[in-house]
Amino acid sequence: MYYYNPWQKDYKDPFGAVATDHEMRLRFASDLENVEVKLVIHRDFGPRYEFELVKSDGHFFETTVKFDRGPALYFYHFEITEATDWGTKRLYYGSTPSGGEGQIVENESDVLNYQVTVFEDVDKAPTWYREAVFYQIFPDRFANGNADGHVNHPKKNSFLYATEEDEPFYVKNEAGDIVRWDFYGGNLRGILEKLDYLEELGVNAIYLNPIFHARSNHRYDTMDYLQIDPMLGTEEDFRVLVDALHARGMHIVLDGVFSHVGQDSRYFNLLGTFGEDEGAAKRTDSPYYSWFKFNEWPRDYKAWWGIKDLPEVDKDNQSFRDFIYGAENSVLAKWNSFGVDGWRLDVADELPDDFIRGIRDRLNHDEVRPEQILIGEVWEDASNKISYEHRRDYILGGSLEGVMNYPVREMIIDYVDGNITAQDVAYRLMTLRENYPRDIFYNNLNNIGTHDTERILTMVGDDNIALAVGLLFMLPGVPCVYYGDEAGLTGRKDPSNRKFFPWEKSHGPIEEVYKRWIHRRKDYVSLKWGEFNVGFEGGIIAILRHVDDNRTLLYLVNPGYDDVYVRFGEIEWMRNQAFTGDVLHLEDLEIPAKSDWFGAI
Amino acid sequence: MYYYNPWQKDYKDPFGAVATDHEMRLRFASDLENVEVKLVIHRDFGPRYEFELVKSDGHFFETTVKFDRGPALYFYHFEITEATDWGTKRLYYGSTPSGGEGQIVENESDVLNYQVTVFEDVDKAPTWYREAVFYQIFPDRFANGNADGHVNHPKKNSFLYATEEDEPFYVKNEAGDIVRWDFYGGNLRGILEKLDYLEELGVNAIYLNPIFHARSNHRYDTMDYLQIDPMLGTEEDFRVLVDALHARGMHIVLDGVFSHVGQDSRYFNLLGTFGEDEGAAKRTDSPYYSWFKFNEWPRDYKAWWGIKDLPEVDKDNQSFRDFIYGAENSVLAKWNSFGVDGWRLDVADELPDDFIRGIRDRLNHDEVRPEQILIGEVWEDASNKISYEHRRDYILGGSLEGVMNYPVREMIIDYVDGNITAQDVAYRLMTLRENYPRDIFYNNLNNIGTHDTERILTMVGDDNIALAVGLLFMLPGVPCVYYGDEAGLTGRKDPSNRKFFPWEKSHGPIEEVYKRWIHRRKDYVSLKWGEFNVGFEGGIIAILRHVDDNRTLLYLVNPGYDDVYVRFGEIEWMRNQAFTGDVLHLEDLEIPAKSDWFGAI
Repeated sequence: MYYYNPWQKDYKDPFGAVATDHEMRLRFASDLENVEVKLVIHRDFGPRYEFELVKSDGHFFETTVKFDRGPALYFYHFEITEATDWGTKRLYYGSTPSGGEGQIVENESDVLNYQVTVFEDVDKAPTWYREAVFYQIFPDRFANGNADGHVNHPKKNSFLYATEEDEPFYVKNEAGDIVRWDFYGGNLRGILEKLDYLEELGVNAIYLNPIFHARSNHRYDTMDYLQIDPMLGTEEDFRVLVDALHARGMHIVLDGVFSHVGQDSRYFNLLGTFGEDEGAAKRTDSPYYSWFKFNEWPRDYKAWWGIKDLPEVDKDNQSFRDFIYGAENSVLAKWNSFGVDGWRLDVADELPDDFIRGIRDRLNHDEVRPEQILIGEVWEDASNKISYEHRRDYILGGSLEGVMNYPVREMIIDYVDGNITAQDVAYRLMTLRENYPRDIFYNNLNNIGTHDTERILTMVGDDNIALAVGLLFMLPGVPCVYYGDEAGLTGRKDPSNRKFFPWEKSHGPIEEVYKRWIHRRKDYVSLKWGEFNVGFEGGIIAILRHVDDNRTLLYLVNPGYDDVYVRFGEIEWMRNQAFTGDVLHLEDLEIPAKSDWFGAI
Repeated sequence: MYYYNPWQKDYKDPFGAVATDHEMRLRFASDLENVEVKLVIHRDFGPRYEFELVKSDGHFFETTVKFDRGPALYFYHFEITEATDWGTKRLYYGSTPSGGEGQIVENESDVLNYQVTVFEDVDKAPTWYREAVFYQIFPDRFANGNADGHVNHPKKNSFLYATEEDEPFYVKNEAGDIVRWDFYGGNLRGILEKLDYLEELGVNAIYLNPIFHARSNHRYDTMDYLQIDPMLGTEEDFRVLVDALHARGMHIVLDGVFSHVGQDSRYFNLLGTFGEDEGAAKRTDSPYYSWFKFNEWPRDYKAWWGIKDLPEVDKDNQSFRDFIYGAENSVLAKWNSFGVDGWRLDVADELPDDFIRGIRDRLNHDEVRPEQILIGEVWEDASNKISYEHRRDYILGGSLEGVMNYPVREMIIDYVDGNITAQDVAYRLMTLRENYPRDIFYNNLNNIGTHDTERILTMVGDDNIALAVGLLFMLPGVPCVYYGDEAGLTGRKDPSNRKFFPWEKSHGPIEEVYKRWIHRRKDYVSLKWGEFNVGFEGGIIAILRHVDDNRTLLYLVNPGYDDVYVRFGEIEWMRNQAFTGDVLHLEDLEIPAKSDWFGAI
């Protein structure tokens, strides 16, 4: 009797997010007479608006809304007034947890709103980024460039692993606190020496976990933003590395950790490492004193997630903002002068929106490398994440250009492991595609594993690894390979996901899978720039990518334990999107169990 | 009315232990008439004997006992029968907890026996040993001889300290088990390079903690008795070190750890490190299978103090005895062929007596270095230690030549810290002197700290360190300096007593104290060979050493917080020993608080 589906062009146009000052046409269907339909829109954390839908041709009710109130999220549902022989009946039509086609509920409080993301259309990522294949390196664990294997400047009261084959291990006390940091001694020259390897693998951009002076092996506890960690090397080593990358047409993105600093930093200096006269914890007239919030100076202070090792910085503090990006000799100015190609912001969802915008603005106007990229660490659907009771607007334009796409990782793993169906995958992908501004969706940095997750091989096993890698490369976004995944490293969460790169064991069968996909990405424009559609049938997921007059790419995955005979006519496509290639005239195909099929059609 | 004191020649002659087949004359004094006195002797864990004492001149009762029943401990007291006007009264005279003069008790079950140690007189230690000053080295923590500071052959899944200044730290799991071993990387070439330092310090013998292949940093968990641990170096390194020591007139003693092996040893091989086909835990037809006792093969086995990491070896097993010392290619044969000068037996009180005798016999007949020394690890008064319900006879001749003298360490610390009086010290020393066979008493390897105890500086502080060192060198026995004590290392028990040698901080004031005493030991024959007597007065301990026609050495210690004026006439000497120099005609002396006085008189 009632029907609406925002994924179909007949009902919502354009699909998905809407640029500011643009219109959205909505149509609602009912074959009943004596019905009135209103569109109810809540602006996010704001007021409620109503729009009358007007009956148009056939059984459609229709309205057009122009979003000229700036970027924001809007949430909507339909209010139906049905004239009956006993009075007027009020019904509500909203979404379901899966998205797409909705449902009727009788109480407004039960209605699940549809989301429409209204964004500023300013986030075209640089071409190099859209075409890149990233490689994430955890610097302590990749390669040691010292010929004799010695470790540069070991940190006092830390442990060095005896061999690079050792299992990572946290040295904790009974309370579970880490009491000694553990290092393998990877360094920048090690990365430099492995550029031939990376180039042969085919990756052309690297994302480095933090490299600035810190106490720990992960270096998220910055001691000095203006110094390369001495264990990793010198500024000269960094310059040589960046220049060598650029000489090969490769790019480099750094990890910006601006939410907090180390307790033992030059800025806080609780332990007196920087003398007794410097730092917010040593003197209240320190230039850094205003960066922090003390309940009782100096030992009781606001810390990131309550971890006293990581004093939280007040990102609203102007002197901190100047230091990070505003001043002529800011942190960003310094490292961008070396030719850095972009930044990944740690815990982006905990940074104030205007702080991120300030960084973006700084990068957009960088004189050395104006084509910079700004990516954020966000674990959930970044379009509607609420953090500290505020809706975050970092993907609505002029802020982040993309996020680390953890939802896609989770979905890939669940699918190839048989925990969700092909239909679930199709619906989740459509929801992400719908909620993200179009550029953001294609800009996201996709992964199937990072330094913060289990290794993909451990999650999916040898049988499924090729399928997971295939999906990573087929889905919209920029693929990022976590160092060593291609060499078959295994491991659960930190620390076992941070083993040293097994140079002796590289060049195995998994590396071949990665290489094949990396080369496909280079060969096919559609893999980099193509519109995306998805379909499902009998446990099989089907992915299409297509752009302009290039050939359409088709990818089929069968993660099941039975061979599947794919009849193309029976695939349930997510139809009516702005996609031109979804009608396939192919001979039917048999996809054996635990295998995939890729072709240009 | 009754008196006996075994420390006075009038009452017991000879003093202390008695050689087998020798006589002991005992006299008991009473000024009462109508008294009969019997000597009651228990042979250790054996029968009770009675000897009538015969009234001799004046008020003495007397008998002479010839000990011709082989070496053993004997315990004795006196039984007194007193004729009264109401019947005969029975009384008992025995020792007190302090020793020396005894006391009357009325019930035989309350009597505290005197001990007489009957020994075979065969333990004259080699001259080099009696004249030595030892230096104990924990090999991982002394010096790294690699010019570039690299660590030889680090062990898989172990940690290396980042710097030699790091604080030692055990990496334990929640159950308190060590899960990763920690290494600084000291090695044999490091010791070789520091021989100039050791020679300048004045020491002329080194005792090395274990050096054979093992998993841990202490190497008491032997993996292979026939291999130098690769982290420490090669056999060639060892040969060069031994030859260099000998070329300087220095000697070397190794640590023999024969009570147990490592779980991960070639002999047990529980973890399969030596393949799946070798070792008692891998096959019941292994040549090593009979060395171990399994409750249920292979995982439930007898282990040293229940520590599963250390399977206990059956030292009664002939094939193990042959392997350690009996066969032509035994462990001792191999290392003695390099010129080793002796062995220190780990947990000697847990080795069967005839196992130790077998080793001693092997050493006595060594063709390369016949002048070997055999020392045992025993923590208590070794003369009467009961271990596993057996009295140990390893100091009764033909077994150990001396033990690590931990009771003396404890006494020195307690005295200089003010926890016991000078009289307590005198009585304890006399008791040790009395109980040990004469040679053993002078052969003991004295220490004020080892790898198993707190550092001496931590125990006594800067004020007392010179007094503790003085006592170490003045007391009978061979002094052993624990590496780094002379450089002012501090630390409580393992692991903080095993810091790396602070080469940057050597040559401080404490080293001067050690050097002074080491040179005194070289200069004065009486310090090496002198008979010993002790006296006390007003908190001061007075020690005499004298031999033949050399000058008598006198040492006075005032550990108190007040200056003391010493009147020599008032010193309570432990008189009537076979000591010729105890009547002193010296001018009285003032000893300031916390100081000492040394002189040849």
